[in-house]
Amino acid sequence: MTLSSSPPSGFRDFLPKNLELRQKVSQTISAIYRSFGFEAIETSALENLEVLTGKGGGENEKLIFKALKRGEKLTEALEKKEELADMGLRFDLTLPLARFYAAHQSLLPKPFKAFHIAPVWRAERAQKGRYREFIQCDLDIIGAEHWSAEVEIISAILKVFDELKISDVTVFLNDRSLVEEALQKAGVPEEKRNAVCILLDKLDKMPREKIEEELSTLVDKQTSESIQTLLLGKSENSYAEVSPASYARLKEISSSISRLNQNARVQITPSLMRGFDYYTGPVFEFRHPKLAGSLGGGGRYDRLLEKFGVPQIPACGGSIGFERLILLLEELGQMSEVSGPKFFIAVFSEEMLPRSFELASQLRALGQTVDLYPGPAKLKNQFKYADQKKARYALVIGPDEVRQNQIRIKDLKTGIEKLEDFEAVLKLPD
Amino acid sequence: MTLSSSPPSGFRDFLPKNLELRQKVSQTISAIYRSFGFEAIETSALENLEVLTGKGGGENEKLIFKALKRGEKLTEALEKKEELADMGLRFDLTLPLARFYAAHQSLLPKPFKAFHIAPVWRAERAQKGRYREFIQCDLDIIGAEHWSAEVEIISAILKVFDELKISDVTVFLNDRSLVEEALQKAGVPEEKRNAVCILLDKLDKMPREKIEEELSTLVDKQTSESIQTLLLGKSENSYAEVSPASYARLKEISSSISRLNQNARVQITPSLMRGFDYYTGPVFEFRHPKLAGSLGGGGRYDRLLEKFGVPQIPACGGSIGFERLILLLEELGQMSEVSGPKFFIAVFSEEMLPRSFELASQLRALGQTVDLYPGPAKLKNQFKYADQKKARYALVIGPDEVRQNQIRIKDLKTGIEKLEDFEAVLKLPD
Repeated sequence: MTLSSSPPSGFRDFLPKNLELRQKVSQTISAIYRSFGFEAIETSALENLEVLTGKGGGENEKLIFKALKRGEKLTEALEKKEELADMGLRFDLTLPLARFYAAHQSLLPKPFKAFHIAPVWRAERAQKGRYREFIQCDLDIIGAEHWSAEVEIISAILKVFDELKISDVTVFLNDRSLVEEALQKAGVPEEKRNAVCILLDKLDKMPREKIEEELSTLVDKQTSESIQTLLLGKSENSYAEVSPASYARLKEISSSISRLNQNARVQITPSLMRGFDYYTGPVFEFRHPKLAGSLGGGGRYDRLLEKFGVPQIPACGGSIGFERLILLLEELGQMSEVSGPKFFIAVFSEEMLPRSFELASQLRALGQTVDLYPGPAKLKNQFKYADQKKARYALVIGPDEVRQNQIRIKDLKTGIEKLEDFEAVLKLPD
Repeated sequence: MTLSSSPPSGFRDFLPKNLELRQKVSQTISAIYRSFGFEAIETSALENLEVLTGKGGGENEKLIFKALKRGEKLTEALEKKEELADMGLRFDLTLPLARFYAAHQSLLPKPFKAFHIAPVWRAERAQKGRYREFIQCDLDIIGAEHWSAEVEIISAILKVFDELKISDVTVFLNDRSLVEEALQKAGVPEEKRNAVCILLDKLDKMPREKIEEELSTLVDKQTSESIQTLLLGKSENSYAEVSPASYARLKEISSSISRLNQNARVQITPSLMRGFDYYTGPVFEFRHPKLAGSLGGGGRYDRLLEKFGVPQIPACGGSIGFERLILLLEELGQMSEVSGPKFFIAVFSEEMLPRSFELASQLRALGQTVDLYPGPAKLKNQFKYADQKKARYALVIGPDEVRQNQIRIKDLKTGIEKLEDFEAVLKLPD
């Protein structure tokens, strides 16, 4: 039986030409995070299931790929009708970071500035542009209470966009503690606040009237009007009055970012929530006019680490949505040219193989990239291969060349051939 | 309830200081594979279960982490007592490559030279030095029949060891088709050949007498003696006579590698099998005297792609055991020094924050690595942090410095402090 050669639904393979841009972007992100003083960490792809479930992950918990128990444990679980899985693939990088920090805090600087670029997995319904395996690029500061942590994180992310020549990014800013106070002031009962937040967060995807209509099914008329004045109002004034101190902090963050990042617009947006329910303070999101949804975001999650026995440690973090960033770069035509090897060496014949090996070896020892054809074959096929690989020069040593102690060089851009010695090969321009 | 903060048993977290060496080594491998004309690919971490099971993976199939079906499909599977999992985490990179090639062959050069550096997962019993998630570094040539493909793959791997200053590597070489012929000649019945191979492969872990004893339980006395003469003999002569053509090819590979890689020893070893049962021709393994087991290996698998409907395409590949390589480098003391940020900026006070932000931003714009403390704090604590991060210089701007338009620079190696302007900061040596 022949097997299907497609990856599972919602999963992807990457060909060399697609990887070029992805690797360049990932290296840029990593270099910039590093230049801001963040250090790389890695965690395991699989986590114990209890780390991934329970408060923290919100909606994403339903999307966990769970690992089936094995051997006796599986038999036992089936017999006793217990949980069949013991581990799960991480669905974000924030929960693993919290666990990581709790495990290793005595070995880490305080505050701890970490970054983590790695795949996460979500069992979402597969659809265009939504994948079940995708890269996240997180950076976090654990142990810093001051809002300058937010400014550093947002600035580092904006610098990535700058470096990749993406202009027109807007930073949307809000504060979940201010939202909480506003909802309280508006008279929203505690048990309904989460539902109201989820609804307001949809403002950019749903018509305003629809939001108002759904709001009226959640709370009474007066409360609904208060919510609209405070969180959906045209002026920020009433929102500012809810808690002048929290609002002043938001303003500080906003003006610092504007001052430090000349290319970015910053906008305080009372309806911005950022889905995850572990946020406790400022939240932010990056958007671009050419992209529906966000390019990334983050916020302060001062209580997430309690779950792992680390009480009262402030923390905040941000993340770039890698797949959306790649999508945007492709949209903007910022694709990088695929660069082939500088040299291709054709193998003239079985007898010439040792000389071809030797030439490849000499050039590689000098740091050159050399693609040697694996074994003798028709020269026509070998040159076709060299074109496919986008090699810059083809080199051939046949019996004539050996006799003259020369190398035949074909410039694959111009098609011009010449006979030269090894020194001349080294001097060929890129 | 407080959760355990350890990763699951057999899994690891990596702290910044441990990642430094891993990332350096992984970049070296990637650069060298590239310089040999190999191109990077990536495949999905999860594969449909039927890709991973069935002929190909041998013993490793038992070690698959399987992903539990979700939603209705799980309910249905439980009711009907069907397979509970639909996907599994890859346990090597060769099966995914074979599937990848079958899926995308029309878009790929022929022959196709690919490399893939990525994690794989195996549900092995956790023990010291054996992990359930680890990195493999594969390179393969699909579509090349000639033994020069083997020479290129082995040479690329040897160059990695050279570059990492690992000397004393021995390449063990054999040919599975020659083994097959030898077993036939010795009179081993077809159904017992696999068991004999598995036994002979243990020669470096088991006393010779024990091998002979177990051999006698598998085959009759005369056959056992023939096997010993052909495959465990002191001289290679009788092995060479089994198939002069195959043996000559092995000798060509061996002498080419010796000629091209001055630092490596090559040894033809008739008992070398390399576990996986998909190998059909030459196989090889890299060993180092300071390491039990191998540093990597590979071989020719001319029939693996048939499974995915690609008939009669020759292929061979090799792999570096990344975790063992790291272990060896640590053993040899080849650890890389952890490099901290060049600049640490202390935040003197809330009032001085904008100036500190500005200084960080200016230095970063010029490509410098700058760790800014997130918010004002006791200077003593900030300097302690700078030491933990191994920063080279600490910079402070307080009210005095602002007045003089200067920056206070502390050399964190010597402890010497001085007042200088921005230009002088830029000129500080590394």
